[in-house]
This record gives sequence, structure tokens and C-alpha cells, in this order.
Amino acid sequence: MDTDLVLGIDIGGTNTVFGLVDRAGIAVHAGAVPTQAGDAPEIFVARLAGAVDNLIREFPFSFRLSGIGIGVPNAHHGRGTVEKSVNLNWGEKVDLVSLMRRYYEIPVSVTNDAKAAALGEMYFGKARGMSDFIVVTLGTGMGAGIVVGGNLLYGASGFAGELGHTVADPQGRPCACGKKGCLETYVSANGLVRTVKDLLHERPDASRLRALGEGEITSKMVFELALDGDAIALEAFDRTAYLLGMKLADAVAHLSPEAIFLAGGLSAAGDILLKPARRYMNEFLFRSYRETVSLVLSGLDPATGPIVGAAALIRQELEAEKYPEKGGKETV
Amino acid sequence: MDTDLVLGIDIGGTNTVFGLVDRAGIAVHAGAVPTQAGDAPEIFVARLAGAVDNLIREFPFSFRLSGIGIGVPNAHHGRGTVEKSVNLNWGEKVDLVSLMRRYYEIPVSVTNDAKAAALGEMYFGKARGMSDFIVVTLGTGMGAGIVVGGNLLYGASGFAGELGHTVADPQGRPCACGKKGCLETYVSANGLVRTVKDLLHERPDASRLRALGEGEITSKMVFELALDGDAIALEAFDRTAYLLGMKLADAVAHLSPEAIFLAGGLSAAGDILLKPARRYMNEFLFRSYRETVSLVLSGLDPATGPIVGAAALIRQELEAEKYPEKGGKETV
Repeated sequence: MDTDLVLGIDIGGTNTVFGLVDRAGIAVHAGAVPTQAGDAPEIFVARLAGAVDNLIREFPFSFRLSGIGIGVPNAHHGRGTVEKSVNLNWGEKVDLVSLMRRYYEIPVSVTNDAKAAALGEMYFGKARGMSDFIVVTLGTGMGAGIVVGGNLLYGASGFAGELGHTVADPQGRPCACGKKGCLETYVSANGLVRTVKDLLHERPDASRLRALGEGEITSKMVFELALDGDAIALEAFDRTAYLLGMKLADAVAHLSPEAIFLAGGLSAAGDILLKPARRYMNEFLFRSYRETVSLVLSGLDPATGPIVGAAALIRQELEAEKYPEKGGKETV
Repeated sequence: MDTDLVLGIDIGGTNTVFGLVDRAGIAVHAGAVPTQAGDAPEIFVARLAGAVDNLIREFPFSFRLSGIGIGVPNAHHGRGTVEKSVNLNWGEKVDLVSLMRRYYEIPVSVTNDAKAAALGEMYFGKARGMSDFIVVTLGTGMGAGIVVGGNLLYGASGFAGELGHTVADPQGRPCACGKKGCLETYVSANGLVRTVKDLLHERPDASRLRALGEGEITSKMVFELALDGDAIALEAFDRTAYLLGMKLADAVAHLSPEAIFLAGGLSAAGDILLKPARRYMNEFLFRSYRETVSLVLSGLDPATGPIVGAAALIRQELEAEKYPEKGGKETV
């Protein structure tokens, strides 16, 4: 019998990554396409399917493709849709499962990208054996996947866990969702860059960031300059960590998880973000929760973690026999 | 066979209410004692047991007392304790179940008062048939009982749901818990009175509240004056509703409940609090949640609801046969 693989896809506001994932949660072969958030969903899926077909063709071993799992912001798992997306120009509602099944006649499952990340952490990362934890994804935007009693929390709407749209400052920055001061306008790769721009106006400190045009600053540059001791870059991380810590203390007051894991591009900043965030979280933590919760980095590789999470989604459903007539696709 | 009753007890920061509750969730006979929060727990329990004995003696029918359920802030259900209580002077940890069992050799169960209120709502109130909802109690302090998938949410620590200690203003009012700007310092009976005092200093408006000494103002007076159109009283309710609505929108972003129920003394203000809170909550709600959640008053009688909730706790456990050697106490 051929090796059984699933395809995991993570659609981000900037890039879409995908890969073939084995039963051990290893991404054995992976690729990427730019998301081009302004594209209509049909155009995007056609482009994605082309890239996936290439990936499958160039993979040198024979295998059976059993299913496809997709993590994408604003997904509704039960309906297989993406609804009212904030960082993609996909309008009110897109039936992503049906769009994908035009190209692949195998089981396809969709969930919120941060929920997929939580599944990845639960099956293949540091949350193995935990029943109550949160994975916070810090990418273009910010999301969270919440696990309660060993199950993903969907809530009545199916959209539970949008911590990126909790209130950081009711009179704060405009958010792409139409509200003001949402946490993701501060705590995300884009949020960090906005904070740097604010600081360059507010503060007189010398900074190599001043030499750059406003459109040129990236979160990666801010990280590298912070490592180098740049005062503006360090202060930007501290402000980000303050709001992250404060709002994670609120998340603990709601959910009391055993651990909170940081994932996504901005989490690659590691201790520069994590250490102050942990300190601020503990300051804001109600006393009943002290010493009961840890804040750590995801145990998954930042590059392939989102793929592995999306793969965990479909793997879990295939194993629960959610798709009785599954019959995966044979490939060479 | 005699009628089977349980005793429900709600220990609040100011008053403790208790009553005999039948299988239909009706408090057939009830009483109260002042909590006297400064008392040591042994003194309090002795006083409470005396009052309960009187209540049982004066009840004119014969019945079997099957168990005792207790709702109290900062309770740990699994350990039967009250820990690090904020509005009671009970120190680090009190084994309340053991203290009660000195007087009553029948099953005794303890949980957070707001969690008990959520059980009452689920079995006997408006949450019947709901699997995801929140009950927010607005009394001396503020608490929340969260139900996810039909079960109370305890989290890893056992203390999930302390929404009264989420951050309303990081530089705000000192809280009895040692932090600053906790939601309950604004949104609670005490919080409303503090807001009135602030407004009397900030605003020049005429108000009948000005004639009162600072120690004389109660939330009930503020409510009555608000009904009468007093500008300060109305503004105090509006500020309270604003913070309540903003933070409930955050709660929805975490949990996406089907409904949020307001209970506790301050919820007796009804529309004066509820209508603006609903409006503010909807303004702060992320678009995926709009029209998916309702904010309404508890379906339980404000006077007996806490007793019925505590009774629901022990009733549920007796029915799940958590206490194999239960053997309730016969009385005359």
C-alpha cells in the first residue's frame, strides 16, 4: 500500500503555504504562492490548484492523497465557508470547500487558521496531552484557537476565538474590520510596523528606521534592529508585548488555560516579544490564576506549523470517519 | 416517601441567602443572614448553621434533605474550598465543604456563585436547551459563569470565568484584589456608587445625590433617582453600561455564546442598564458575531435565583450519583 498523505494549506493575508503531510505530522514536501488578497476567490483557488498540482507532480514518491485541510481567517468550519473576511477581499461569503472540490474530489475541510494551528499544537506540538490551551497566531493579523476540554471551541456562531478583534483601545487605531482599536491593529506584524511609525513621530531617539520610507519598514527589520539595540525598535516590541500581555490576562480570566502558545510570523521574534509579554501578563493576572498558566512559543516549526495544523484538521476528521465514502486520490 | 428537598446557599459579599428547593427549582422556604465579611469562616458557618436549623425547624412539612449546594465567590469546586477571596476576609484557603459537614452529614458541594447562577439558568431559567451561554452576576462584585457545550467551564485552574477581574482600565480604580482598573470596580453595585462619587466631583449638574453623605449612597438609590431623571444617576448607569457592553463584546470574541444573562442585585435596574449595555456591546462586536448573541436579564427571580442556582449544583450531582453513600437527613 502507498504512503497515506494529506495536503495542508494555510491561507494568510500575504502568503499561502501548503504541503504534503504524513501521519507523524511531518511536512514532507511544501510550497507557497502569494495570496494576492485583492484577487477574487475563484482566481485565487485556480492559482493555488496549479501550484498544488506542481507540488504533487514533483514529489518523487508514490502516495495516496487522502484529504485536504485548509486554515484560513474568518472560516466557518461547519459550513465550509469563509465569511466577512477582513484581510482577504472575498466579500460576504465564499464556499471554499466547494471551490476546492472542483479540483480535488477528495474530502476537504476548512477551519479558521488559528484553530488549525491549535489542532497542530495538540497533535504534533507542545500541547500533546493538554485539554485546555490557546494558540495565538501573530501574522498579518492576529487570531486564536481555543481548546476547552480537548475540543476546539467554536461557540454558537462557529467563530469563537477572534481575540484579534477584542478591544485594546476603544478610541484607537482604525481596523480593517470597521471597528476601532482592535487588538490586531497593535499586536501583529502590521501592528508592530504601525507602532514603529507612531514612535518615529513621537520620539526624538536616533533610529536606523528613520532612514526608511514609510512603506519599506517590515516587522522583520524591526526585529533585527531590536536585536541590535535600536531604541525605537525595542520600544515598539515593548508596547506590543504590553497589550499582548494585558489581553492575554483577560483571556486567562475567561478560559483559564494550562498554556498559551504563540505562533505565526511575529512569534519568530522569540524572547524579544515573549519575555516582556510574559511579565506584563503576570502583572495583569488575577491572583487565582498566578502560577497556573504558562506563555511559551509554539512547538511547531514556524515555516511548516500552519501546514501541519491544517493537515491535522483533515487527518482528525478522516480518522473519526467523518467522510464515509472517502476514497482518496491515487497519484504517482 | 417524604418530599425530597435540597438546601441552596448563596454567600455574597454583603448578604447570605439560603433556602429549601424542590425538584422543580422552586425555593419553597428561604431565609438570610448578613455575611459580615470580616468574620472568620468558622464563626460565619456557625452562625449560618444556626439560621439554617431555624429555617428547617419552622418549615411546616416533613421532607428529606438530600444535599447542600453552595455558591460563593472564589470557590474551587473540585477542592471544596474558597481561595484567595476578594470580598470576604477568609484568607488564603478555607475548606468550606468540611466546615459545613461538621453540621450536616449529607453531600455538600461548593462552586463559584456565578457558576451556580449559570446552573440555575440552565436547569430552571431561560438557558434551558442552550449549550453555550454566560451568566454575569452583578452584585457587590461581578462574576461570570460560562457554559461551553453544555458544561460549566472550569479551566485548568478551576477558576475560569473571573470576568470581574478583566482589565477595564489599566490605570484605573484600585481593586480589592490588588490590581488596578478591574471591571468589577466599575461594573457592580459598588462600582456604580464609586462612579456616582466621581461624577459628583466632575460634573456641575444638580442632583439629589449631592445632599447625601458619601457613605449613604447605595446602588438602589442611584437606580431610583435614574428612573426619576436625575442627570448624575443616568450618566452613572450609562458609564457602567458602556464598560459592561465593551467587555461583554470581548467575552463574545472569546466564547461566542448564544446568550448572555444578567443576574444579581444590580441587574434589577433592568432596562436602565440593559438597553445601553446592549447598544454598546453591539457597537464593539466583531462583525462575525452580530445577530448571533442576545443580552437579556436572567429568567430567575432576583431574590431566589442564587438559592436556586446553588440548589441546581447539588441536585445535578446527586442525580449523576456523585455521592454513592448519600443517605440524606430525615427531618420533621
